[in-house]
Amino acid sequence: MSTEQAGNDFRYVKDLTDIEDDFDRWFVEVNQKAGLTDDAPVRGCKVLKPYGYALWEACQHYLDPKFKEVGVKNAFFPLLIPRALLEREADHVEGFAPEVAWVTRGGGRDLPESEWLAVRPTSEAIIMTMLAKWVQSYRDLPQLLNQWNSAVRWENRPRVWLRTLEFLWHEGHTAHATAAEAEAFTMTILDLFTDFLQNELAIPVIPGRKSESERFAGAQRTFSVEAMMGGKHWALQAGTSHYFGDNFGKAFNIQFLDRDGTRKSVSTTSWAVSQRVIGAVIMVHGDDAGLVLPPRIAPTQVIGVPIFRKDDERAEVETALDAALATLKAVGVRVDSDWSDNRPGWKRSEWELKGVPLRLEVGPRDIAANQVLVVRRDTREKQQVPVAELAMAIPALLDEVQANLFAKAKAMLDSKTATVDSYAEFKGRVAENAGWNLIRWCEDAACETRIKEETKATSRNLPLDGQPDPGPCLVCGKETTGPRWIFARAY
Amino acid sequence: MSTEQAGNDFRYVKDLTDIEDDFDRWFVEVNQKAGLTDDAPVRGCKVLKPYGYALWEACQHYLDPKFKEVGVKNAFFPLLIPRALLEREADHVEGFAPEVAWVTRGGGRDLPESEWLAVRPTSEAIIMTMLAKWVQSYRDLPQLLNQWNSAVRWENRPRVWLRTLEFLWHEGHTAHATAAEAEAFTMTILDLFTDFLQNELAIPVIPGRKSESERFAGAQRTFSVEAMMGGKHWALQAGTSHYFGDNFGKAFNIQFLDRDGTRKSVSTTSWAVSQRVIGAVIMVHGDDAGLVLPPRIAPTQVIGVPIFRKDDERAEVETALDAALATLKAVGVRVDSDWSDNRPGWKRSEWELKGVPLRLEVGPRDIAANQVLVVRRDTREKQQVPVAELAMAIPALLDEVQANLFAKAKAMLDSKTATVDSYAEFKGRVAENAGWNLIRWCEDAACETRIKEETKATSRNLPLDGQPDPGPCLVCGKETTGPRWIFARAY
Repeated sequence: MSTEQAGNDFRYVKDLTDIEDDFDRWFVEVNQKAGLTDDAPVRGCKVLKPYGYALWEACQHYLDPKFKEVGVKNAFFPLLIPRALLEREADHVEGFAPEVAWVTRGGGRDLPESEWLAVRPTSEAIIMTMLAKWVQSYRDLPQLLNQWNSAVRWENRPRVWLRTLEFLWHEGHTAHATAAEAEAFTMTILDLFTDFLQNELAIPVIPGRKSESERFAGAQRTFSVEAMMGGKHWALQAGTSHYFGDNFGKAFNIQFLDRDGTRKSVSTTSWAVSQRVIGAVIMVHGDDAGLVLPPRIAPTQVIGVPIFRKDDERAEVETALDAALATLKAVGVRVDSDWSDNRPGWKRSEWELKGVPLRLEVGPRDIAANQVLVVRRDTREKQQVPVAELAMAIPALLDEVQANLFAKAKAMLDSKTATVDSYAEFKGRVAENAGWNLIRWCEDAACETRIKEETKATSRNLPLDGQPDPGPCLVCGKETTGPRWIFARAY
Repeated sequence: MSTEQAGNDFRYVKDLTDIEDDFDRWFVEVNQKAGLTDDAPVRGCKVLKPYGYALWEACQHYLDPKFKEVGVKNAFFPLLIPRALLEREADHVEGFAPEVAWVTRGGGRDLPESEWLAVRPTSEAIIMTMLAKWVQSYRDLPQLLNQWNSAVRWENRPRVWLRTLEFLWHEGHTAHATAAEAEAFTMTILDLFTDFLQNELAIPVIPGRKSESERFAGAQRTFSVEAMMGGKHWALQAGTSHYFGDNFGKAFNIQFLDRDGTRKSVSTTSWAVSQRVIGAVIMVHGDDAGLVLPPRIAPTQVIGVPIFRKDDERAEVETALDAALATLKAVGVRVDSDWSDNRPGWKRSEWELKGVPLRLEVGPRDIAANQVLVVRRDTREKQQVPVAELAMAIPALLDEVQANLFAKAKAMLDSKTATVDSYAEFKGRVAENAGWNLIRWCEDAACETRIKEETKATSRNLPLDGQPDPGPCLVCGKETTGPRWIFARAY
């Protein structure tokens, strides 16, 4: 069947920059060419085209029921937040003030400065204000809330999916009677995010605690799941879960009468996964031919491509292809077919570019043999599958692709993470984009700042499963006793 | 089982204003007391609490697959729209300019006036800008797009669900090669909205064409589905579908090369249902005891209430109630139970207030008889249902409640709609909140304006199924030939 591949069939792939040559350019191009996103005529913003938005919908379809399983309920709080509310928690406003977009005019008039409205950069301020009203007694706790929306943070160096002026996310916010319960919930969500990234997106992550300088504005502790991207092997913070202690409970006066008859402030958490996880999917799994989508989130899992040369072959190919896809649809596989006028070779590279996990080709010879040709996107392996086995074989193959993508990403993470005890070696590794570094750090901000200024690497997190490994701080030589920290360049 | 009802069990219902006494106050109170919404500390905005937001989620769960069935795909376009784009279609900007909230500061600096960003009042301007890029050939058409988001329109007389500064909605936008196809799609969506309102929300609606003065800004024709609310029998525009002709295609230069080799402008549509349909559900079905939710959208369809006096009865009641609810859950019924410390009478009025379609009570005598007590919210009819029949009887009963709510609303619509041929009678009916009026109108804006100024009634729509009924215009006496228009007070 390779005879149909004409010389210019692979125009898309030819146009796509090689990952090795320029990963950042590859990332920009693959988004545009695969039809995920487009530049918006709005400063720092992107349009999510249907194929790109479908990936976010897939994340929602997984996460939303998982949140509900742990008792979280969806709600909706206003987009526009009065200035005075945003300013109630000092660290919080300090962290966000420079990034806020302000509505200063409405209904045809200028608003007095005291009435300016912030376009939601995050919703702690408004949600905590409402909780102060809703929470009076221990019977009103816990409050477990979530909302799906977009947030706006003024962004001077926009990058598709990862850093845009407006971004899609969900934001969970909870209030608890005790610090211990709030801390436990912070970790429940971190586990949920870990499962999501690993099982759905096939991205291995390292859950851990952020350093003080990398904490969320107003949080007592921030935890993250960090993922290693392909190409330059930089890190991406793929989800965060924050424990605020009673910072917000006190700042917003959220008090309740406890069982023991005393009034107490609530302990709160917040946690989020944003559209940047789609960027991670692209950067972890993609290759020089384009996207490689994990089957669990792929909008189309199997693309049918008809193969025929003469018009009189078309009818039987159509019947056979439709039947094969109907069989798969009946067992829950998401299928589509490409009956455009393009040549088969063009279609093959088009659907490779779009990262569809399996391509199913049917031509006259396949029909004669009562089989179809199935091609994996991840390995490009081809196999003939008897029609009678499709309903069993394809779901199994999709699971195999999913597992292989995770295994490949895990192998990259493991092979590109090194224990480093010499600052010179560290500098060399960071300069060469050699991967992540597990180092001893005294947790003094001065050492962290020096590393950042001298190498641009930042502390990613202190892995939760790290084992104590006493020894001298990589920078200042002071003795440390805890586990090693991950330091790496990050998006 | 009525012995448990103590004197002060019905405090909620006692507090709720009677519909007859003050419908608008009843509406405000029922939202607050049933836990649907709360006042936000933001001008003109409401918070949607989980119970209220769940109703919007139910609308999404119905509509989203229906849109996809007719080929529509979800996408995401930026919230902030540059001033210059909003100004490209003259009628459009004139319609929206007074209602726009403007971002004039970001990243710590004032923006030049030319860079001001409108917070999305609607997305025609940004979507049409992108379509001008995406549509080059007839092969790129139709473009059928939708997005779920919120929009902001400065609102000086906010009213919960119906008119808030920010509101949740979806907005569909399509572009077609021909005017005929665009017009047909406008009607496809109007039918879909009619089905949604009638079948899901149990609200009978009149689909029809809006008058010129009531058209959407920039549209050639606007169609609406109009519903009659309870209480004052005012109208509520519950969904709109707009046909723009090539107004936007020309203003945004969306041209394509057609099969015949000539360049043409696309014809476009837009259409939306907003959170105001939840307001309609409340105002159409509610009664003096609170909400009455149609089973199809009720977050909880059956609430289980345990009845026991002594602690040693509790265990057997719990076992029986859990088993009954598990049986229902297994057949797809959405169930919940109330094990709070409140007395049964309090629980009964609480769940009536919240509008749960069926209440299922289990006490020791029910257990002995191997049955449960089922109480309908809509009619308050009680019936004993043998445990063995639950799985069949309850889904059937839910269907019956759904059908009854529609029938009641339809009876109200029919009985409160009158053919009116005297302006004096018209004025009297409007002043007395007697219902809708089917009148002959010459379609001259002067007559429409006079009616509005003198009675506050407005033209609602020209029903699609109206039959020609020649005669003199109600106001000016000029001869008319077409069907009658609906005129009524409206929210």
